[in-house]
Amino acid sequence: MNVDEKYFNNISPRERAIFEGAITMGALFHQFVGTPVSLESAGTLEKSIKKTMELQPCIKTVEVKIDRETLEEVKNEYDYISLTGEMLDVKVLSHYDDKNAVIRLKFIEELNYPLMYVEEIF
Amino acid sequence: MNVDEKYFNNISPRERAIFEGAITMGALFHQFVGTPVSLESAGTLEKSIKKTMELQPCIKTVEVKIDRETLEEVKNEYDYISLTGEMLDVKVLSHYDDKNAVIRLKFIEELNYPLMYVEEIF
Amino acid sequence: MNVDEKYFNNISPRERAIFEGAITMGALFHQFVGTPVSLESAGTLEKSIKKTMELQPCIKTVEVKIDRETLEEVKNEYDYISLTGEMLDVKVLSHYDDKNAVIRLKFIEELNYPLMYVEEIF
Amino acid sequence: MNVDEKYFNNISPRERAIFEGAITMGALFHQFVGTPVSLESAGTLEKSIKKTMELQPCIKTVEVKIDRETLEEVKNEYDYISLTGEMLDVKVLSHYDDKNAVIRLKFIEELNYPLMYVEEIF
Repeated sequence: MNVDEKYFNNISPRERAIFEGAITMGALFHQFVGTPVSLESAGTLEKSIKKTMELQPCIKTVEVKIDRETLEEVKNEYDYISLTGEMLDVKVLSHYDDKNAVIRLKFIEELNYPLMYVEEIF
Repeated sequence: MNVDEKYFNNISPRERAIFEGAITMGALFHQFVGTPVSLESAGTLEKSIKKTMELQPCIKTVEVKIDRETLEEVKNEYDYISLTGEMLDVKVLSHYDDKNAVIRLKFIEELNYPLMYVEEIF
Repeated sequence: MNVDEKYFNNISPRERAIFEGAITMGALFHQFVGTPVSLESAGTLEKSIKKTMELQPCIKTVEVKIDRETLEEVKNEYDYISLTGEMLDVKVLSHYDDKNAVIRLKFIEELNYPLMYVEEIF
Repeated sequence: MNVDEKYFNNISPRERAIFEGAITMGALFHQFVGTPVSLESAGTLEKSIKKTMELQPCIKTVEVKIDRETLEEVKNEYDYISLTGEMLDVKVLSHYDDKNAVIRLKFIEELNYPLMYVEEIF
């Protein structure tokens, strides 16, 4: 079976790139929010988020940064906190055919909300 | 701040509907997979998935069906299992401006994979 | 196979009640943190957390309260936020044989941490 | 504030070790089930589960094995699947004071269930 022909012939390559990138960003957020994280372990978690999310269809690269300032300021006796969307800065590069989309997750202070948007499309 | 103007002026209303629907589908899958579910509690879980995911930006309605046959066949002494993507059949209706998209999650036997695709766009 | 005899003969009924209650509390936190929640949908989510987590072995009842004050104060244009451990107040009542344990999850301001502890055991 | 004195004076060191190990096992399962995983990325995911879960209170070490046979047998065109409890073999070593507990998660074929139990206590 040709999956693309059967299930994706109603959208353009540009739309497909947006579609797949958006799925992966929603997935990433809801899979990993809540994970325990500390200054010392943040790098390992970033790498694992990257490697697992790059498996998804049409995903070329995933860049993940967990905010270190928040981790430095943790003031409880356990020295870690649960990962939140506010701490994440992520770029997902998806591609299909000749189209690429960069989906971004970034906390926007003005909105007080971790926004997902299409940063670039080419 | 006008969020749409600042962050979404590079994509069309049709693309925006696809984008937001896809985020919600990825989110739904990765938030709820793993949840304990039984024949008796499946309805409550479906309703809760629907209500929480309808909160996301540009989402009009979410329809969730958890496969009852799988639940009927559970053969362990605990009478429940962890929710998997294979058990889910979901439709997310997203809209932006004058455009609507139905994003579908469905297990496709031929692919042996719970596929997410754009079922309708109008 | 007698599971209790084979796998649990090294701990007392009291320890078993603690064990099963603790598993369910850890599970509950990490399954549901991140879920979108609003004032209007909080009740549905509470009910669903209760119903799904009561399926786990040796769990009699689960009581869940999501902090409404936090939800009332949400100040973004989307009128919802992601559930955090800080917003949860949970009691899990587990029992085995003639022993019962109430496991509590509660945000402790002095600790700045959502603490899990054994509230009662009888 | 002395947390142990205030919140944990009703249970013994042995019970505390069981309690904390059990929380971490429930947390681990429900945080990571659903994550995309492939043969190639399984090692990175194992390491990240280990590092994040070792942050939890009273946890000394976490050993995680994701079943490679299941991953080798993946027969879909995407070459990855969602992590399930059935694929996990985990040992959590918790300690409090002079007591240690090894909590195990293992799929038991006879039960058709990924069982959590206390493997050792010393």
